Formats: sequence, C-alpha cells, structure tokens
Amino acid sequence: MKLSDAVSAQTSLVQRLLDGVSTIGADPPGITRDAYGRGENEAVGLIAEAGRALGLAASFDAGANLSLRWASGRDAPPVLIGSHLDSIVQGGNFDGAAGVIAGIGAVAALQAAGIAPRRDIEVLALRCEESVWFGLGLIGSRCLLAGLPEGALELRHARSGLTLAQSIDSCGGDSARLRENTPLRDPRSLGAYLEVHIEQAPQLIEAGAPVAVCLANPGNVRHPFIRITGEDAHTGLPHRFRHDAPLAGADLSLALERMWLEEEAQGRFMAVTIGRFHTPSARHSMTAVSGGFELSLDLRAYSADHLVALEKRLGEIAAEVAARRKVEIVLGERSAAAPGPMDPDILKGLSAAAVRMGIAAPPLNSPGTHDANNFVASGVPVGMLLVRNQNGSHNPYEAMDTPDLMAAIGVLAEYLAA
Amino acid sequence: MKLSDAVSAQTSLVQRLLDGVSTIGADPPGITRDAYGRGENEAVGLIAEAGRALGLAASFDAGANLSLRWASGRDAPPVLIGSHLDSIVQGGNFDGAAGVIAGIGAVAALQAAGIAPRRDIEVLALRCEESVWFGLGLIGSRCLLAGLPEGALELRHARSGLTLAQSIDSCGGDSARLRENTPLRDPRSLGAYLEVHIEQAPQLIEAGAPVAVCLANPGNVRHPFIRITGEDAHTGLPHRFRHDAPLAGADLSLALERMWLEEEAQGRFMAVTIGRFHTPSARHSMTAVSGGFELSLDLRAYSADHLVALEKRLGEIAAEVAARRKVEIVLGERSAAAPGPMDPDILKGLSAAAVRMGIAAPPLNSPGTHDANNFVASGVPVGMLLVRNQNGSHNPYEAMDTPDLMAAIGVLAEYLAA
Repeated sequence: MKLSDAVSAQTSLVQRLLDGVSTIGADPPGITRDAYGRGENEAVGLIAEAGRALGLAASFDAGANLSLRWASGRDAPPVLIGSHLDSIVQGGNFDGAAGVIAGIGAVAALQAAGIAPRRDIEVLALRCEESVWFGLGLIGSRCLLAGLPEGALELRHARSGLTLAQSIDSCGGDSARLRENTPLRDPRSLGAYLEVHIEQAPQLIEAGAPVAVCLANPGNVRHPFIRITGEDAHTGLPHRFRHDAPLAGADLSLALERMWLEEEAQGRFMAVTIGRFHTPSARHSMTAVSGGFELSLDLRAYSADHLVALEKRLGEIAAEVAARRKVEIVLGERSAAAPGPMDPDILKGLSAAAVRMGIAAPPLNSPGTHDANNFVASGVPVGMLLVRNQNGSHNPYEAMDTPDLMAAIGVLAEYLAA
Repeated sequence: MKLSDAVSAQTSLVQRLLDGVSTIGADPPGITRDAYGRGENEAVGLIAEAGRALGLAASFDAGANLSLRWASGRDAPPVLIGSHLDSIVQGGNFDGAAGVIAGIGAVAALQAAGIAPRRDIEVLALRCEESVWFGLGLIGSRCLLAGLPEGALELRHARSGLTLAQSIDSCGGDSARLRENTPLRDPRSLGAYLEVHIEQAPQLIEAGAPVAVCLANPGNVRHPFIRITGEDAHTGLPHRFRHDAPLAGADLSLALERMWLEEEAQGRFMAVTIGRFHTPSARHSMTAVSGGFELSLDLRAYSADHLVALEKRLGEIAAEVAARRKVEIVLGERSAAAPGPMDPDILKGLSAAAVRMGIAAPPLNSPGTHDANNFVASGVPVGMLLVRNQNGSHNPYEAMDTPDLMAAIGVLAEYLAA
C-alpha cells in the first residue's frame, strides 16, 4: 500500500482514540484529565491497549511514563514520538492527546504500508505536562531526562491533595528512584524526539495551512504564587491612607502588559499571562478594601537572553508598583523552562517530507511550551509539527479537525520512512 | 452625682460589654459576628441582659431588631440611640457594637446622675448592617423604616445559605409581616435617631480629637456582582487574539480610581472600593488566559447629585473598557443608599453639649454609610458622633480606646439631659 493511502486508512483508528480520550475526560463543557488521577490513567490505559494491538511493547518508567516500543532489531538510538494525555481543568480534548495519538497513527500507517522501522520507534505518553496540577509542568519529561527540581516530590496535587511522590507511586511509578535525581534515560542514548501538537493560537487558521513545522518553542519563567500585601481597610478610607492590594495587582498586570506590547513593537515576540488573579476568597467583602491579593505569572519568550532581560524588568516593575502603591510584592516560588529551538536537520527533514506528501507546512514559532523543551535542553535532537486549531488551547472549545491531524501523521510517517 | 462623674463611673460597664462582644465574635486575628447567626444573636443577648439590668423594657420587632426602652411616662416621640452588632468576616470589634454599647452607657450614666428621661429613650440593636452577609446592607433599619427591596427576603446568607426570610424567622422575627413591605414603625412617631460609631478613617487621629460631630454620611451605589466575560485561551495566544477578562478588570478598576482622584482634586469627596476582585476560583490555572472575571464595586459620595453623575460616568467607563478589551461587562445587581445629611439642630445641640463637657468634637464628614442614612431618608432628625480610631474599620485591627468612647458617651448623655 502507498504510504499516503496507508495513512488515510488509519483515520478510523485515530478517530476512535480521539473519541476515547474525550469520553474519559468528559467534564462539560470541557475536558478534564487529571494528571496521576483517573483521567490521565484511563487515557494511558487506552493508548497502551492500542499500542499492544499494533504489537508494540508497553513499559512504564519510574515516573509512570508509558513507552510503546516498536522494535527494529537494530542497535541504533531510538526515535521517540511523544506528548501528554493530561489536560488542564475544563480544557479541550486535543492539547497533548493529539500528539500521543499521532504517534500511534504513524506507527500503524508505516505497518500498513509494509515499512519496517529503520531504528526502534517509541511512542511516549509523558505524565503531567500541565502545570495546573502541581504548580509545576512537564513533570514526566523532567523525570525522564533531568530529574525534578528540589522539593518537587513534596508538592501537592491541586485536586487529590496527594504529594507528587504519592501520586507517582499510586500510578505504579517509583518515587524512591526519582529521589536519586538522575535521568531515567541517558539523553545520549536517544536518537530524536518528535512531537505533534495542536497550535495554541489561530495563526494556521489565518495562514490556511493544516500543519506547520515548528521553529522553536518558547521558554518561560513562571511565578505561580505572587503575593501582594497591603492593608485591610474600610470602604470609607480616603485614598491617601490606602494600601490597596487589588489595585496594586491591577497596576502590576497592566505594567507587564505594556512591557509585552513594547517588546513586540520592536519585533521581540513573547507573551505575558496572568491566569490566577484574585482577592483571597475566604475574606471576600464588598465593603472592605482588601489587604491581600494573589496572582500567577507566565512570561514566555524565544531566546534565553530575552528571558533574562524580561525577568530583570519584571523585578524592576514589581519594585516600582510596590513603592508607588505602598504594598509589599513577593514574587515567591519560581520555575523556569529554557526556550527550545528545533534541530535544524529534523526541521529540514520534516519540511521535505511535507513537500513529498503534498502537504502545506509553513514554518512557525510555537505559541506554547512543550515536553519537547526538556529534550532540547538535554541535547536530544527535536522536531515538532503544529496542527491547525480554530479556538486556541487550554479551553473547552479547542477545535482540531481530524483531517488536519491526519496530515501531520502523514508528514511524520513519511519522515520516519525516509 | 455630676453627670461627667456619672459617665466616668460607667467605664467598667462599657468595658465589660466591649469585652463581651469581643469574646462572642472571636475569630483570630479578627472578629466575626455573623448576622442572624450565632455571633450577632449572642451579642444581642448580652446587650438585652445589660439593658434589663438597667430596668429597660426589651422587645423585638418583626425584623428581629432589639429595642430597650427607658420609659419616661410622657407622650413625646421617643429618642432612639442605635447601631448594629454584626461585623464583616474577620472585621474588628468596634464597628457597630461600640454604638449600641454607647447607648447603654449613656442611659446608665443618666440614671447614675439621677436624671429622669424627658421623653422615652430607646437603645436599638439593628440587625445585619453589613452587606457581606446578603450582598445588601442596613437590613434591620430598612425593615424598621421603609420595607425591604424586592426579592431581598429570598437573598441567601453567605455563610448559612438560608434565605433572609428564613434567617429572620430563625431569630424570632416575622418574615410574613415583612412581606407586607410597610414600615414597622411610623417614622413620624420617632423624635430623633442618634448613633455613635467609630470613625472608619484616621482623620481624628490626625486632628488629635477623641470625637467628631458628624456632618453627613455618604450615600452609595453598589454593584455586588459585576461580571466580565472574555474568552478562555492558552498562555501562548498572541495579544491581538486575546479577550483577557482579568486585564479588563484591571483596566476598569484603575479607570475608576483615576475618576476618584480627578473628582477629589476638584474638591468633590467620594470613594471607590473594589472589595472582591477575582478570576473564578473553580477554573484557576497558571497556564490559561481567563475568560471570566468578577468584581464588586462600592461608589460613595456626599450628595445625591454627585452620585448620579458618578453612576453615569461608571456606565461610560465600563463601556469604554469593554470596547477596548473586546469583552462584555455586565454591572448586574445594583443597590443604592441616599447620602445622609445630619439634622442641623441636633448637630448644633451635640456640638454645644461637647463644649459644655469640655470635649473637643470637631465637625467631620463620615467616611462610612450607616443605619443613620435610612433614618435620614425617612425624615427622622438624625445626629451622629464619630469616635477616634487608629486603624480604620472592617479589618481585624480596629483600635478604639475606651476613654474616647466614654467621651462620646459624655457628649451623648449631656445632649440627652439638656
């Protein structure tokens, strides 16, 4: 069978898996697949079963990541195709899951076309990519490649309240092994990491292309729990006496937004997101000035130098706002991920494969950070394909069309065959 | 006994009652006396007992307000001395309670000085002055004088979840009577309403005076549940595609603050308070742009015309922000209270009484709205005394010194005696 026909023939398998993880995560109007919980576990089970049906060997590492290996009988470093199966709370069906399913689809297409793997191919379902569960993201790939940040195993799950160590152990992982804090796999033993992911912005919709070859993932600096402390007070307090924490939060957020717009006006792409932004709910009152305020911050950019400059500016802006508003601003906990430029050879290879398959696949910076970043940071050659998606990601209305995912699977399979 | 000595002699009674309501409301580091709940009910019980010990006749009306009547045997309209015993969540001990206790203290002082009442004097503990419990304040005095706004009896208590009707009935009130929506007392039958209240700002601290004679209470317009609806999205979404609800909230709040500062620069005193200001906690994520945001708004000013102008400007500002931010802003539920100018004769009488007692009592606009506003609106002649207070109100650190409250009781007793 021609490879393009073999890819098309996998549409029903791919659709069945997309529908399967959707049913598992159903939380109308969105999708919630909780990391290290029922949602992610059942999705992992579904994918493992699909892999076994293709003759792949399933195994789990100490981080409870699933690997489905298609053995080549050759000793070359394997090619990994991965993504994640967890979602945010009330997210969509495709962020993460589409990439794992694309790996299954590509293997199935190669098998249907009678193409033997030139080296081992592994489909990976990496755990807990979303940072909503522990205030720290990319946990599965961190375990695999680099170890976890200090204290991470004691972080608590937003829903279950279990520590990360307890969560991992409850899924058959081995937190004691993770405490050794060394990679579960030697990055030098890995040939390449490929990831398919929906685009998290409508730029491919604008461009009219089903797929993009990714140029780079952004890196980020995150502060999950920024705290502003002013002074509780009565509604009648004259302005000159106030230390109003919510207004300081408003001031801080708009100052960061101005920084963003100024940077982009000079061609330095980035993003600022303030996801949590709130007065403390336990003390909500219409008739009191709140002395407390909390927010989360995600700063992202495409080069390490740019991130360093932005983080410096963040500190300055926070100090300016604190002084102007007579409040204390504590940025608190910080996590960071390095920007992830794609491997130039893989980038060329994917573009050439798209041309051979007759699929439009322009180059594009990824709006989102992915597990791929950790592979880049570990020195593994990485390539990514982004899939057209109408309504962005991290919301219930993600809308990827299956034919667009099949286009990405076609590019991936053609690349693997070559 | 000289009246000033008789007042001083009540210090231990006053201190015992202040300590009593503090113990009842203890919720470290603050005070919570929940309206129509254990906190307010026990405080009402303590005050009723203190009133009975002075020979006052206790009774409760259909709104469960407590009246303690000192009968004069004369047929003149009574003088009411009132305030409230509920607090906000984690508020302080003195906002409200000091005024009720001042009424008890003044009656006790007059009795100790052997002064018979010239007309009936009633000490009132009015229910649920704080709007935190039902999103609507001044409930006891509304019941007494004007009836409740439509639907108010179906509002639900923030803590117990009971409706206002159920809450009132559970405290011995009569919600069926309140559904008639006519005043429980004919305002024309009331001679005067006097209220002692801590100042909710540190202006008396600045002025170095223990007490002020109040010129006017502010009126307000309140929107307890303003909702902003944008679009949930991924952190990577470029700025031009975003409909970011929290940033629209930030924008709205700072625009209202600018309005405030511009008005005051032109001598038009007012205040803006945004007490609740938050992303929806059920969907909190560091890695998603929030499409939802909620805030409460309290706008206050000292003349009806000024409030009308401010409310018009609020509508314009909300529309400007909604257009600029590509979000929807719904101001939603609205409540309002008219500004409350004091009765000129009572104002003069209180000032003269302060001079006779040798107590410094400058005139001052009240930062806060009080039950007194409802009496003003009903045509009852009203006077208020404000008591020096270090740390504002509606916070755990309210700090009124008992000698300053005794000064207010002295002015009040001297005024009643004259």
